[in-house]
Amino acid sequence: MLKLFGLSEDSKPSPWEIIAANKRQALRDAIPAEWVIPAGILPPEDQTDVTTFPRESGWFTDRELEITSTAAPELLSKLSTGSWTSEETNCLSEILFNEAISRAKQLDDHLKQTGKPVGPFHGLPISLKDNFNIIGKDSTVGFASLVNDPATYNSTLTDLLLEAGAVLYVKTNVPTAMMIAETVNNVFGRTVNPRNRKITSGGSSGGESALIAFGGSRIGVGTDIGGSLRIPAACTGIFTLRPSFGRFPNFQTRSGLAGQESVNSVNGPMAKTLPEIELFAKTVIDREPWIHDPKCLPIPWRSVEPKKTLKIAVLWNDGKVTPTPPVARALKETVEKLKSAGHEIVDWDPIGHQTAVNILSRKFLADGGKSIRKLLEPTKEPFRPEMKDYEQSSEIGVHELWQIHIERNTLQKDYMERWNACGLDAILGPTTPYSSVEHGKFAYVGYTGVFNILDYPAVSFPTGVKVDKTLDTSYTEHQALSDTDAKVQNGYNAEAVDGMPVSLQLVGRRLEEEKVLMMTNVVLQAL
Amino acid sequence: MLKLFGLSEDSKPSPWEIIAANKRQALRDAIPAEWVIPAGILPPEDQTDVTTFPRESGWFTDRELEITSTAAPELLSKLSTGSWTSEETNCLSEILFNEAISRAKQLDDHLKQTGKPVGPFHGLPISLKDNFNIIGKDSTVGFASLVNDPATYNSTLTDLLLEAGAVLYVKTNVPTAMMIAETVNNVFGRTVNPRNRKITSGGSSGGESALIAFGGSRIGVGTDIGGSLRIPAACTGIFTLRPSFGRFPNFQTRSGLAGQESVNSVNGPMAKTLPEIELFAKTVIDREPWIHDPKCLPIPWRSVEPKKTLKIAVLWNDGKVTPTPPVARALKETVEKLKSAGHEIVDWDPIGHQTAVNILSRKFLADGGKSIRKLLEPTKEPFRPEMKDYEQSSEIGVHELWQIHIERNTLQKDYMERWNACGLDAILGPTTPYSSVEHGKFAYVGYTGVFNILDYPAVSFPTGVKVDKTLDTSYTEHQALSDTDAKVQNGYNAEAVDGMPVSLQLVGRRLEEEKVLMMTNVVLQAL
Repeated sequence: MLKLFGLSEDSKPSPWEIIAANKRQALRDAIPAEWVIPAGILPPEDQTDVTTFPRESGWFTDRELEITSTAAPELLSKLSTGSWTSEETNCLSEILFNEAISRAKQLDDHLKQTGKPVGPFHGLPISLKDNFNIIGKDSTVGFASLVNDPATYNSTLTDLLLEAGAVLYVKTNVPTAMMIAETVNNVFGRTVNPRNRKITSGGSSGGESALIAFGGSRIGVGTDIGGSLRIPAACTGIFTLRPSFGRFPNFQTRSGLAGQESVNSVNGPMAKTLPEIELFAKTVIDREPWIHDPKCLPIPWRSVEPKKTLKIAVLWNDGKVTPTPPVARALKETVEKLKSAGHEIVDWDPIGHQTAVNILSRKFLADGGKSIRKLLEPTKEPFRPEMKDYEQSSEIGVHELWQIHIERNTLQKDYMERWNACGLDAILGPTTPYSSVEHGKFAYVGYTGVFNILDYPAVSFPTGVKVDKTLDTSYTEHQALSDTDAKVQNGYNAEAVDGMPVSLQLVGRRLEEEKVLMMTNVVLQAL
Repeated sequence: MLKLFGLSEDSKPSPWEIIAANKRQALRDAIPAEWVIPAGILPPEDQTDVTTFPRESGWFTDRELEITSTAAPELLSKLSTGSWTSEETNCLSEILFNEAISRAKQLDDHLKQTGKPVGPFHGLPISLKDNFNIIGKDSTVGFASLVNDPATYNSTLTDLLLEAGAVLYVKTNVPTAMMIAETVNNVFGRTVNPRNRKITSGGSSGGESALIAFGGSRIGVGTDIGGSLRIPAACTGIFTLRPSFGRFPNFQTRSGLAGQESVNSVNGPMAKTLPEIELFAKTVIDREPWIHDPKCLPIPWRSVEPKKTLKIAVLWNDGKVTPTPPVARALKETVEKLKSAGHEIVDWDPIGHQTAVNILSRKFLADGGKSIRKLLEPTKEPFRPEMKDYEQSSEIGVHELWQIHIERNTLQKDYMERWNACGLDAILGPTTPYSSVEHGKFAYVGYTGVFNILDYPAVSFPTGVKVDKTLDTSYTEHQALSDTDAKVQNGYNAEAVDGMPVSLQLVGRRLEEEKVLMMTNVVLQAL
């Protein structure tokens, strides 16, 4: 065990190291022996793209592959009519497999006996990010101190999904406190991108994005406070919706900055297709989550007709960090196709974007890292290097926090009035400056974070463009907009990300989730 | 001028004293000489109830009295058809009368030329609480330092009302920072209750309540962060709706605790009749305030059918302060009538109420009074005695504020689930422990404040019960629930409040403003 951490046999491990090692072992042990894939058929170390493994390994039956590659709407129609049984959807993973199989059997029995599905998610396996509470299960959010501290209540969303008939079978990895844009922590280690294991699956919902991109889940739920749904979705080429605060129930989930409400975390679905995102969104809202979540808004699902011609403002660049070459190309190609399809395109000036990113950072650090420190100290767990800002920050005091709120409110008003004056339907821009990026190199969340400060809904969607190392070479004679820009561009490695999908982000007005989904459909039709 | 403040000629007045005296003089000067009521016909000092003055003084014409006693819906139908002109609604007051007359003429011209009213509030005079910004006018919220600091922009609501055709003609007095339950500050002094000048009109929207109860305004707009709409409405026997946050636009208003968002201030209408409240609420929401206020929710006005039988929980007592005798009697009589009308009545246990009140207070004081101090210091204005908590509090830090949020969220969830379990339509209880109370004696805002923490909509309505000094004698052998309870009961003076109207509060689920208004109608029918 000591060697696991590169420690000599002489040095005494810290409490957190022992806890983390035990937790990892417990996770491995929770996979039944007959499901553990033999080492002999695992892909070799130098095979970076492992998404082909399920189909090529021979380990899975045709039936299993048929099920795992069926999108959720069709899956549900088979499950709710009994043509497939819930137990047969055998995509269960470590933590909850016993409960999930037993629940799947119950659902099957119910359907057999009553002829009716339990609810709109009857039998559908849904994966959850680690911070959703399930009674009896840990929600460590990457802290050793939270290992073996099982939840005593369900998150509101957990209850809602169970009542709707879903099968919860796995919770997925996150970075420490969910405050890193890659998925890495001291308990479980690092999550890699199944499309290229040398590349990050993004964060903080990077366990979800990896699982879905690999084929281990059709629909997963992540959260987003600065980009944590959109960044991992973009890094793995899947879809997500970051809703405005109050549409989906986020109550009684674990947070790394508990009680921080100056910018609210929201949850949203992640999936390989847009219809699965729409299915989740409509189904959750149709169940009136505002009855049980005091922060949820009583806004029912509002169907919107497709709009043939959209007025879209393009955010080419946010003024601080230039999108890397493949992202810039994907944006350009997408805009050309939108123009050809007859949409009205205008340029969008990134006024306020830097202020927004600055505000976001100050809010996160406002307690001087005390919340994080209190979770690290019990096990002597160190701050991860990615979180040195939290280690070095100082408590700013309530009065100063109030001044930040004033600044944020002015920004929200100015941005809204600029949107009004322009008569926009949507903003289109990069989800991140990257397609994805090698582990440890993700340096900028400004493209997502600005819309957390504004609380606008946004869909991150794959454009169909893939990085081409011959087309997407580094910029020559790039004038860096900032130190971060220099870091991003100098770190750009076309070879490393060759073949990775490129996503963009479509942003709508606050609380217009239905419209931004409709508009994403319209955009996809033009691609 | 020095004598105004009881200072000797030798002592040098502080800057705030000079500023305040000048501001008061400027206000007096802003009333045109021909409108100043001659001292000879003013009611004598010992006449406490001055609401009869307009009718009995002979100073007003029959036409003027007819206009000022016409409820807003009828007023609007006359104004929008031109059968009355806007200019003729001569209830203008000090600050904005020139602008108001000129605007009224413009509106009349518009109607004459186009045959169409400008909007749904065409020609209707609406009074505004002092903290609503009107370009070129002060919003001092009672601070000398904010005198002669005219607004450079309109509040979002100001713009909305003007675009809807309203005539803004006066802003009304508030207590310092709007954080006292009576209306008193160092600039304008104290607002009295026109029903009894020895009694408070409540606060913080106590300028509004006094003006409306006197007959000087049909509809006014106040704000509420701990009871500031409901307390003054109750003290003067008028109606108000405290909406949940996000229904009515509250953006770009002045606050005494700017940037404080742990509990949000909301605005709402105050009027003599419920239909006027409904008119305002529906008209404002129909104008889609969420297009211009980034905090407003895109929830359209949702008509609800009257529900014949309501399930109402009665809050007899919040566990900390007993309602004074007339309020207890009004509640009892109202409940009896509701039972007779067939409504289902249950008792409501005040679980969480004391926690809520405690949380509210800690949030207000969280910056250690720094926001208030910064507004007092420039003119050496002292803390008012009612605000000594602010003077004595300490900055708690952001981390501690986050812990308060966690506590508040648990309370919100528990309260909601208790409501769900009980299947309630509404809670009925005191608006305050008082009918009203003599100046300087208002000691407890817990009955209103709890619903600010929960963010539930509430209507305060007059029950028709009036204090009867022979019926409503002090409790004998009262077991005080707390020091505050002892203070309230010991201070109760049946003689002083004899004849004052008693109001109650009807509370609905969060963001169900339409339903709480419908239910108030149903309750009124039973009375």
